[in-house]
Amino acid sequence: SFSRGMQTVTLIPGDGIGPEISTAVMKIFEAAKAPIRWEERNVTAIKGPGGRWMIPPDAKESMDRSKIGLKGPLKTPIAAGHPSMNLLLRKTFDLYANVRPCISIEGYKTPYTDVNLVTIRENTEGEYSGIEHVIVDGVVQSIKLITENASRRIAEYAFEYARNNQRSSVTAVHKANIMRMSDGLFLRKCREVAENYKDVKFTEMYLDTVCLNMVQDPTQFDVLVMPNLYGDILSDLCAGLIGGLGVTPSGNIGANGVAIFESVHGTAPDIAGMDLANPTALLLSAVMMLRHMGLHDYGNKIQTACFDTIRDKKVLTKDLGGNSKCSEFTADICRRVQDLD
Amino acid sequence: SFSRGMQTVTLIPGDGIGPEISTAVMKIFEAAKAPIRWEERNVTAIKGPGGRWMIPPDAKESMDRSKIGLKGPLKTPIAAGHPSMNLLLRKTFDLYANVRPCISIEGYKTPYTDVNLVTIRENTEGEYSGIEHVIVDGVVQSIKLITENASRRIAEYAFEYARNNQRSSVTAVHKANIMRMSDGLFLRKCREVAENYKDVKFTEMYLDTVCLNMVQDPTQFDVLVMPNLYGDILSDLCAGLIGGLGVTPSGNIGANGVAIFESVHGTAPDIAGMDLANPTALLLSAVMMLRHMGLHDYGNKIQTACFDTIRDKKVLTKDLGGNSKCSEFTADICRRVQDLD
Ligand SMILES: CC(C)[C@H](C(=O)O)[C@@H](O)C(=O)O
Ligand SMILES: CC(C)[C@H](C(=O)O)[C@@H](O)C(=O)O
Repeated sequence: SFSRGMQTVTLIPGDGIGPEISTAVMKIFEAAKAPIRWEERNVTAIKGPGGRWMIPPDAKESMDRSKIGLKGPLKTPIAAGHPSMNLLLRKTFDLYANVRPCISIEGYKTPYTDVNLVTIRENTEGEYSGIEHVIVDGVVQSIKLITENASRRIAEYAFEYARNNQRSSVTAVHKANIMRMSDGLFLRKCREVAENYKDVKFTEMYLDTVCLNMVQDPTQFDVLVMPNLYGDILSDLCAGLIGGLGVTPSGNIGANGVAIFESVHGTAPDIAGMDLANPTALLLSAVMMLRHMGLHDYGNKIQTACFDTIRDKKVLTKDLGGNSKCSEFTADICRRVQDLD
Repeated sequence: SFSRGMQTVTLIPGDGIGPEISTAVMKIFEAAKAPIRWEERNVTAIKGPGGRWMIPPDAKESMDRSKIGLKGPLKTPIAAGHPSMNLLLRKTFDLYANVRPCISIEGYKTPYTDVNLVTIRENTEGEYSGIEHVIVDGVVQSIKLITENASRRIAEYAFEYARNNQRSSVTAVHKANIMRMSDGLFLRKCREVAENYKDVKFTEMYLDTVCLNMVQDPTQFDVLVMPNLYGDILSDLCAGLIGGLGVTPSGNIGANGVAIFESVHGTAPDIAGMDLANPTALLLSAVMMLRHMGLHDYGNKIQTACFDTIRDKKVLTKDLGGNSKCSEFTADICRRVQDLD
């Protein structure tokens, strides 16, 4: 049948420029003959039985079956009490690791060259526990929750990632000098796991020192692993080093192969529907996805074509410094993908 | 008498290169005829009555009298249970605001030019509460404590600082989308205080967005105010943008004019006593101190001389890219200070 050898991916086009950049990715995948069958779904939360916000059942069902999602930007819902869609997706599918490779793109000018690092963020607990109280009037506490299990799990993920991606070192980022018990537990688990990966170098560094060193010389870093909030910060900082969220891919990984890959930029409502959007972040996220699915050849081909188009500088979208439309940029990548065959 | 019009400052030379760079600062102050009388003290904590760690009484007494301290780097004590000296000093003198002007230094090459911003960090609470518990085996919580009073106080400090230093905007840095109650309270206080400073523009930004924007274009920022941990991170990040801790001054401000100015770099034991250290960070901290004391003319004169020496590139310490000794660098600044008279 037509779909022999095809794998299904749940496509969540998202809002604003989401549909345009999703179309761009689908076209490039088609040009690359990537064996992917897309199943489009809308994930915007609805109120389920008992008034709890949830992912619509047909989207949940699709993800449960396909295990792999590709997601464009979602607009922040305005309904009172509506949860952050990012947080809800992470929770619904227990996507415990956020992975962001930050690799300098040749030809795209930034203050840095040769950045080549990966941030791995614990995605389920820490400062994102959601537990807060008013102690007395004018005194509020938020609880940062660190568990042995989640810390071990993310540390193991980081070392596995390093090993499987030919990376030589993992740095645990922490403030265990201040949060001795919580960051201390996180750090201890990293140290323990490191014992099982003697082929990967392990180092530890304070978050503030990482930030300082990062902007002075990002080339010293390789794989970085850290609790939730530190990852939120560092992943955006590192995206900034290579040109911002418009060119940075992201993956959220769960157990048993479940994963959602996503562009982490906004919905850009001002240019939505105008064929001006830059699909690079979603495309590179889709490349991560292909590798995650074991389809390295397709991933490499598409990435090469995308980087060639950017390096060539002839057909670029506005945010990349050019004058071309999204469809023209996409067509240029498609042509290169086909030439690579 | 000799000390007519002189003001006393408690000098805490510190460890490692601390004494050398303190001597450099004293020489430059002498050349500038700055009306400062130094009272040298050692602050390394001792065990007081009841076994509590405390600042030695003669240091505490000097600070209580002078109200102003200048402090070199302190080595991390190794005695079990010995507190971080930084934290103990902040606590002992209720130094609630950490202020770090990050201003690009002409002639000192970094990936950025024209950085000109100030981070103002709440120094007493937040993630530094020190309250942590094991909930059950393998589950730990750390408590972030945000109070109305400390939030209002730091917001007021930030706006006063902006107004008194001809700065046009204050940005509150937060994650109130995640920590709705704690960061929410902090943000609410900033908004309230902003109402009283209509001459200063007020904006709010998520910490992750600040980090992203900061490395892409730091010139968009002016005064930034934030809770403790975010300040720890951002102040080091911003120091990195202008060349690191070796050139970044810092001040810790308390109530009623009490303040300790300090270099925030380490003790550099490897070069201690070798006349190789760079006194710039401590010197620029001392310049902040002069301004804090109302001695702007002396502060400006010394700062100009220091920047001239760096811009001139002829007499630089090794870390600044030169071959000169600390004493030569100091002498060059002294000469320029005298020429400015
Ligand atoms: C939208 C927000 C909840 C989210 C976060 O803080 O984690 C975002 O910044 C991210 O990194 O995905
Ligand atoms: C030494 C440490 C306690 C301190 C902190 O985390 O605040 C340091 O990083 C600082 O910024 O002064």
